[in-house]
Amino acid sequence: MKGNLLYEGKAKQVFRVEGNDTHLILSYKNDATAFNGKKKASFIGKGKYNNQISAKVFEFLQEKGIASHFVRSLNETEQLVEKTTIIPVEVVVRNTAAGSITRRLGIQEKSEFSPPLVELFYKNDVLGDPLINDEHALLLSDVTPAELLDIKEMALNVNDHLKQFFENIDLTLADFKLEFGRNIEGRIILSDEVSPDTCRLWDKETGEKMDKDVFREDLGDLLYVYDNILQRLEATV
Amino acid sequence: MKGNLLYEGKAKQVFRVEGNDTHLILSYKNDATAFNGKKKASFIGKGKYNNQISAKVFEFLQEKGIASHFVRSLNETEQLVEKTTIIPVEVVVRNTAAGSITRRLGIQEKSEFSPPLVELFYKNDVLGDPLINDEHALLLSDVTPAELLDIKEMALNVNDHLKQFFENIDLTLADFKLEFGRNIEGRIILSDEVSPDTCRLWDKETGEKMDKDVFREDLGDLLYVYDNILQRLEATV
Ligand SMILES: Nc1ncnc2c1ncn2[C@@H]1O[C@H](COP(=O)(O)OP(=O)(O)O)[C@@H](O)[C@H]1O
Ligand SMILES: Nc1ncnc2c1ncn2[C@@H]1O[C@H](COP(=O)(O)OP(=O)(O)O)[C@@H](O)[C@H]1O
Ligand SMILES: [Mg+2]
Ligand SMILES: [Mg+2]
Repeated sequence: MKGNLLYEGKAKQVFRVEGNDTHLILSYKNDATAFNGKKKASFIGKGKYNNQISAKVFEFLQEKGIASHFVRSLNETEQLVEKTTIIPVEVVVRNTAAGSITRRLGIQEKSEFSPPLVELFYKNDVLGDPLINDEHALLLSDVTPAELLDIKEMALNVNDHLKQFFENIDLTLADFKLEFGRNIEGRIILSDEVSPDTCRLWDKETGEKMDKDVFREDLGDLLYVYDNILQRLEATV
Repeated sequence: MKGNLLYEGKAKQVFRVEGNDTHLILSYKNDATAFNGKKKASFIGKGKYNNQISAKVFEFLQEKGIASHFVRSLNETEQLVEKTTIIPVEVVVRNTAAGSITRRLGIQEKSEFSPPLVELFYKNDVLGDPLINDEHALLLSDVTPAELLDIKEMALNVNDHLKQFFENIDLTLADFKLEFGRNIEGRIILSDEVSPDTCRLWDKETGEKMDKDVFREDLGDLLYVYDNILQRLEATV
């Protein structure tokens, strides 16, 4: 069933599905990268956690009516997804200030954004994924103005649901990054992953960071944290 | 008439007007800075050229119905303007790709933007005037969403007029930066300067750079170029 390797990214391998032109297999790697690839390490088991956490998130979002690429988990580290042409615009939603925005705009860490802030970044490793505005996004991708509005609406809608999802396991969702892709029918759907690699999650009781910042900032045992999130998810229904 | 120095920027001094709370005197300096202040020099006569060129631009824009701070020239290097509270958002309009956008987004120099591209930057020297999006602008300033739309409309309107203005003296307007301020009545008006320090101007025949890029890129005699622009303006009515 698993076909050739189509593409290898920093966190996942993408495989074809034999005899199937509409689906792909995402295989989660154990690699962690940060600061535009300048910091790198490998954690045995990370791929497994991210695949399973991301699968649970997408299942939840689909129940909430969010159209996405997710079809089903295949095994511990792999999932079947709809093939899309990824729109090279990363969509970040911020509820609370952390990371790049604090340095970029001098905004105090933990400041609340209400309403949540939506930022777009050009998905381009060579350029370091620079911040862009709506006009840049239209210039650098094939999305129409109406589709771009829609993408931002979807991202805010995902935020509302994800806040609740993580609240249920006593985590505060500070921010997260989404990628959208255009499927074979031309429809824009949520793609890529939603995991502690792509979300900032803070323990509600202790405030501790429970996401890739543990790796970025050398705060402790990344696998312990990812495992803990998966356990919390498995403990709820 | 000239009161105390209120503020000194990189290119201008701002003086109070004695017994007058609604106006200021802008005094153009001979200093040139580039790359967020990292490159500096002084050119005797630069202040005179920029004051006079900026005055001519503002007179032209006022004839075209653009509300601005400009009142009148006072002498070779100074002009009387309405006092505003500057909105800390620099508005850049680009007709042709040059400068930071080519590096930031990997866009080929001289690519045409049609329609022209509007970019916002947070006016903050410490942070290096970072690019921002509309939501950031609303967060970092006191403008309302409607006012922000209005500012961008005004900038595009200014562009239409300025393209014609410079076309008349055989210069192509590649891009420019505007600042807006809120006057005593709360109205947002065009402020600051419009000069070869803040515009990219290319000779229509030769393609030669006729603006601060001459200083940024060490292309030749800055004063010659600024003098040439003023002469061209004085040669037309
Ligand atoms: N449904 C999909 N169809 C096609 N490509 C996808 C899909 N979902 C995610 N991708 C892409 O898979 C690639 C591998 O993921 P990842 O390792 O996270 O890459 P990156 O190094 O770009 O972050 C990325 O380019 C991602 O955009
Ligand atoms: N009408 C105005 N009222 C008040 N301040 C103004 C007005 N026009 C321009 N300014 C401000 O005058 C200051 C001096 O100008 P400049 O030397 O160009 O400063 P900068 O170093 O910030 O570029 C700037 O902060 C500019 O925004
Ligand atoms: Mg990725
Ligand atoms: Mg200035």
